[in-house]
Amino acid sequence: MKKTLGEIVQSVKGELFGDASIEICGVAGLQEAQKGEISFLANPKYKNFLKSTRASAVITNEKIENSLPFAVVKHPNPHLAFSQVVKLFYPERRNCPAEIHPTAILGKNLKLGQSVHIGAYAVLENEAQIGDRTAVLSGSFIGEKSKIGENCLIYPNVTIRENVIIGNNVIIHSGAVIGSDGFGFAFDGKVHQKIPQIGNVIIEDDVEIGANVTIDRAALGSTRVGKGSKIDNLVQIGHSVEIGENCILVAQVGIGGSTKLGKYVTLGGQAGLVGHIEIGDKVIVGAQGGVTKSIPPNTVVSGYPAREHHKAKKLEASLSFLPLYIEKIKRLEKEIEQLKKKLKKKSK
Amino acid sequence: MKKTLGEIVQSVKGELFGDASIEICGVAGLQEAQKGEISFLANPKYKNFLKSTRASAVITNEKIENSLPFAVVKHPNPHLAFSQVVKLFYPERRNCPAEIHPTAILGKNLKLGQSVHIGAYAVLENEAQIGDRTAVLSGSFIGEKSKIGENCLIYPNVTIRENVIIGNNVIIHSGAVIGSDGFGFAFDGKVHQKIPQIGNVIIEDDVEIGANVTIDRAALGSTRVGKGSKIDNLVQIGHSVEIGENCILVAQVGIGGSTKLGKYVTLGGQAGLVGHIEIGDKVIVGAQGGVTKSIPPNTVVSGYPAREHHKAKKLEASLSFLPLYIEKIKRLEKEIEQLKKKLKKKSK
Amino acid sequence: MKKTLGEIVQSVKGELFGDASIEICGVAGLQEAQKGEISFLANPKYKNFLKSTRASAVITNEKIENSLPFAVVKHPNPHLAFSQVVKLFYPERRNCPAEIHPTAILGKNLKLGQSVHIGAYAVLENEAQIGDRTAVLSGSFIGEKSKIGENCLIYPNVTIRENVIIGNNVIIHSGAVIGSDGFGFAFDGKVHQKIPQIGNVIIEDDVEIGANVTIDRAALGSTRVGKGSKIDNLVQIGHSVEIGENCILVAQVGIGGSTKLGKYVTLGGQAGLVGHIEIGDKVIVGAQGGVTKSIPPNTVVSGYPAREHHKAKKLEASLSFLPLYIEKIKRLEKEIEQLKKKLKKKSK
Repeated sequence: MKKTLGEIVQSVKGELFGDASIEICGVAGLQEAQKGEISFLANPKYKNFLKSTRASAVITNEKIENSLPFAVVKHPNPHLAFSQVVKLFYPERRNCPAEIHPTAILGKNLKLGQSVHIGAYAVLENEAQIGDRTAVLSGSFIGEKSKIGENCLIYPNVTIRENVIIGNNVIIHSGAVIGSDGFGFAFDGKVHQKIPQIGNVIIEDDVEIGANVTIDRAALGSTRVGKGSKIDNLVQIGHSVEIGENCILVAQVGIGGSTKLGKYVTLGGQAGLVGHIEIGDKVIVGAQGGVTKSIPPNTVVSGYPAREHHKAKKLEASLSFLPLYIEKIKRLEKEIEQLKKKLKKKSK
Repeated sequence: MKKTLGEIVQSVKGELFGDASIEICGVAGLQEAQKGEISFLANPKYKNFLKSTRASAVITNEKIENSLPFAVVKHPNPHLAFSQVVKLFYPERRNCPAEIHPTAILGKNLKLGQSVHIGAYAVLENEAQIGDRTAVLSGSFIGEKSKIGENCLIYPNVTIRENVIIGNNVIIHSGAVIGSDGFGFAFDGKVHQKIPQIGNVIIEDDVEIGANVTIDRAALGSTRVGKGSKIDNLVQIGHSVEIGENCILVAQVGIGGSTKLGKYVTLGGQAGLVGHIEIGDKVIVGAQGGVTKSIPPNTVVSGYPAREHHKAKKLEASLSFLPLYIEKIKRLEKEIEQLKKKLKKKSK
Repeated sequence: MKKTLGEIVQSVKGELFGDASIEICGVAGLQEAQKGEISFLANPKYKNFLKSTRASAVITNEKIENSLPFAVVKHPNPHLAFSQVVKLFYPERRNCPAEIHPTAILGKNLKLGQSVHIGAYAVLENEAQIGDRTAVLSGSFIGEKSKIGENCLIYPNVTIRENVIIGNNVIIHSGAVIGSDGFGFAFDGKVHQKIPQIGNVIIEDDVEIGANVTIDRAALGSTRVGKGSKIDNLVQIGHSVEIGENCILVAQVGIGGSTKLGKYVTLGGQAGLVGHIEIGDKVIVGAQGGVTKSIPPNTVVSGYPAREHHKAKKLEASLSFLPLYIEKIKRLEKEIEQLKKKLKKKSK
């Protein structure tokens, strides 16, 4: 497929510096792009790749010298514009024909929407519901009475336990487990008695869930992931956690039971949150941060235990000088001893 | 199903403040409960939910003003009592009829107990053993000569490799992998040579293993999880690790090879333990703690590297004041300089 | 099977202190070994096990008193020598006959090599390629156009998405997901728009990938794992990451997108690396280390944020004394106050 640069610029609503008639045949990274391809620069760190790129056009918001041998598409959000261009060239990633593989196990009283795709060896238990145009790929398991909305993509080898509710346009990557029992035990003085986990999980519209993520069902009520939130690989979400809308959870994050996140919260990779706390809207937790108490909205925290980021940075800087200051203290001690002695001498 | 509050109180051996004849028809959390339902309060943090709950009865150990519009079931362990009540209303969670799905692959010389359930597309390799009333759900894999005890529940898409031994009443959640090769390599100066992992894994009775947990087989001998221990999601247990009885491992914990845990050890979420150390009975490691050496029994540690918790807390408090103390040191330096000058002047 | 100790010593090129004619019938750990078995001692920590071992021979590089009742095979790399001995006694671990299970789903235009093993319920999508003697075990999924080399072992329930390229002699453990979408979104001011991930993953020869590992495909170009690198369980590798040759990634490591590792890099368990940085050859990152910027070759770092290890150790030592030094500062302040007063008095 080919498109002129002019067509592309128009579709992403960018500003063109260069020849609108250039033919573009594909997309690639700055280092890999060939003549005829379009690329992008979002992270200024990679600005020097511009000198060597063979791309015919680059989408960016950076100032570019106009002597460079490619067209520039100026756009305030190059990532976003680029993702739109990628979709122009690769309109549909997964080819999921509307068909039910003969090896799929279909329980009783299913509700299957129009144009669903059910892959080989997928298992749908009784009374499960699958919405229009949703694909459940090979080897995935949909438990009893679970309900999946429209236009979802469930990759191979996903496990969705019983009574889980999933909205529309949800993507779930391979190996994810949704609705496993929450980790709830009562110690009777000798052994840990299991507390039955009879709640469920609700995943709202437009959520994406990474590979090998685990989201536990609530003991009572629901564990909930809000509309538009995106969850990276190997994240753990405990029972009764509530995640607001449009949150970003980077890989290997862990969230303890009953913790609540507001909207637009960002948790860096490997960050951990204890249970039973509240995280306000637009909070950002740095990578590996350990959050031990509730955080008010619009706060940036980092470190363990997590502190406001500017304090954590100051502390970190202080720490670097700690051995130096310990030497200083030792010297000051000696100097004070000498001063004391001198003063004593004088007094005599 | 309905039960009177009197019957419930009797069955959990609690003390009733209220009307024994009230009919209870279900269980729910304080916030979700409706008239006719029973709830519980274990964490004092949620005490103010009592003011608005619509529950007809609440199990708790907290002091409750007697003006509130619900019956109170006083119990020293409300979590435990509540879990018993849940079991009254939801006697069996998983409906696993005694049947072998026609698509299950049955190897040679299997030993299958009475009333076993083998799900669709489960694979049992040669000489595997499955105890009475055990359920192996859809898509799970049981390797050659592996032996699973009685009354176990193996959720969908679990992988149990060869020669693994699993006791009775064990629950294994979806995506868990038991008996993968230990991470053992010998560097020959150029490349890492694989050390064959010919040991196995032993899981004792009453263990619960979370979703997407990984437990590696030993190079030699056995990796072992002791009776009654409970393992949360995404935990990693290295080869030849030995976990004592009734331990609690919260999500995303990692334990290096050959480390040994005593009984009743609790590891907080994301805690990491290096290999080849010993952790005494009843040790508690805080969330994200990094344990680099052996810990004597009955010790609480936290932080990285893990220190005794009261030291770690003191250190943490000191740290908060570090920038302040650095300012003090700078001021003290100046003051001493001035004192020195003054003293010199005087000497003249 | 039996071998004389002399044969064993010759095959591992060790130096024998003892009787070459002793018959050896198996291998075991020092504590478990019985008469007639050979064991090894690599970690000096376990030296006192020598006193009680029943092994007939021990491979080690340690100095051993010659009064002990077993033969000693001296070798500079006891781990390596031992792994060779294990292979003598257990020549082939997995019995994978050259056969395609009748339940395997075979897509169109596959290229299957000689003596391949395809397990029950494995799914090979159209145009996948499987090299000679490679085994794809039960329930694994190989996506469209993915290409697996020769002599690979893909354990049960692995998911390999489309267009992934895997070299020769690669081992992939159960539950691993290779080629899931990278975590790429562009915020449009309201919601997070998905950036299509149209790149792939390349795994070079002799790589081993642990259970439940996740390796994301690149947005553009390739995520790459270099020849001979070994990846432990539950590791996360972000999109466009490049890992050099012969690296060691211990369990639960996480690597942010586009980060590049040189050769012979070692990442300790639970270490985290942010995206877009470069880690030089032979760098070692301590367990739980948090790496926030690029690291030059041959550096050892630890802690959060990761510092050069000797600095981190010094800092850690200083930290232990911090509460003490804070007391000192308070005392110094008082003493200086007193000195000032005395001096003032004198001045009068």
